[in-house]
Amino acid sequence: MIRVMNREDFKSFWPVFSRVVSARETYAFEPEITLEQAYHLWCELPLKSYVYIDNGEVLGSYYIKPNAAGPGNHVCNCGYMVAEQARGKGIARALCEHSQQQATEFGFKAMQYNSVVSVNEVAVKLWQKLGFEIVGRVPKAYRHARLGFVDTFVMYKWLGTSDD
Amino acid sequence: MIRVMNREDFKSFWPVFSRVVSARETYAFEPEITLEQAYHLWCELPLKSYVYIDNGEVLGSYYIKPNAAGPGNHVCNCGYMVAEQARGKGIARALCEHSQQQATEFGFKAMQYNSVVSVNEVAVKLWQKLGFEIVGRVPKAYRHARLGFVDTFVMYKWLGTSDD
Repeated sequence: MIRVMNREDFKSFWPVFSRVVSARETYAFEPEITLEQAYHLWCELPLKSYVYIDNGEVLGSYYIKPNAAGPGNHVCNCGYMVAEQARGKGIARALCEHSQQQATEFGFKAMQYNSVVSVNEVAVKLWQKLGFEIVGRVPKAYRHARLGFVDTFVMYKWLGTSDD
Repeated sequence: MIRVMNREDFKSFWPVFSRVVSARETYAFEPEITLEQAYHLWCELPLKSYVYIDNGEVLGSYYIKPNAAGPGNHVCNCGYMVAEQARGKGIARALCEHSQQQATEFGFKAMQYNSVVSVNEVAVKLWQKLGFEIVGRVPKAYRHARLGFVDTFVMYKWLGTSDD
């Protein structure tokens, strides 16, 4: 089940978040981030945050927010995380599809990911399957824990109908 | 003269800022932004903000900040504005060159512009002259006041030496 995330959910989600961030392989968050700071970034700054729950267990989450203000606020941005033990089960896909529906309901016309780590092939391929295109490649924009400087992709999907 | 911007400078700069933002041709800020909100975004959130002053008059400004946290914090982001009556006099160039020097002093390895409006040819050409490359093109990411949906560019320059 996917529903709006509350503070208790975030506390359950914190070990997942913390592990993803300290791995320094996918996200450009401060690896030493505290629970409070993470809650602020993931649940307070965004427009909305959601949680994927199975049998009372928090297995994944995403946030959605405008990617820019004013003349850029028709494009939204999302970030997704899935618990290590729950990967390969379609949860990221379910979260992404849910986020696209929500984005449309909120009135966004497009969705943009600003920094998909290029060597994160599982993610890149999934986003492509779900309609996202690589529209940019930023050289050496991420310091990967094992690989050092790697490129990041800007990925983008227009959600509106063609005559919008 | 280029120096660190203070609150009084920002007040002098406010008519320039306000006009640039309400024109909705170059920046993705809320067009109805207040002076307080603008000061927060331009001078408080960034690492540092600078002002170009000639004869006591504020003719331009820029901010510099990390473009991302943690494994992305070696890339900085800047934004520049020049007063309408002072354009075509090399002030944007001077600000950009100054920002690259400051970026290097702060230890950044690269500079990224996330959203250069593609039809803003003067800016695009100037950044290219100063060593920036277009590394991405985001379709219809900006609602231009006169032209409707236009593309934006991601522009990028590596500042470090090749063996960094």
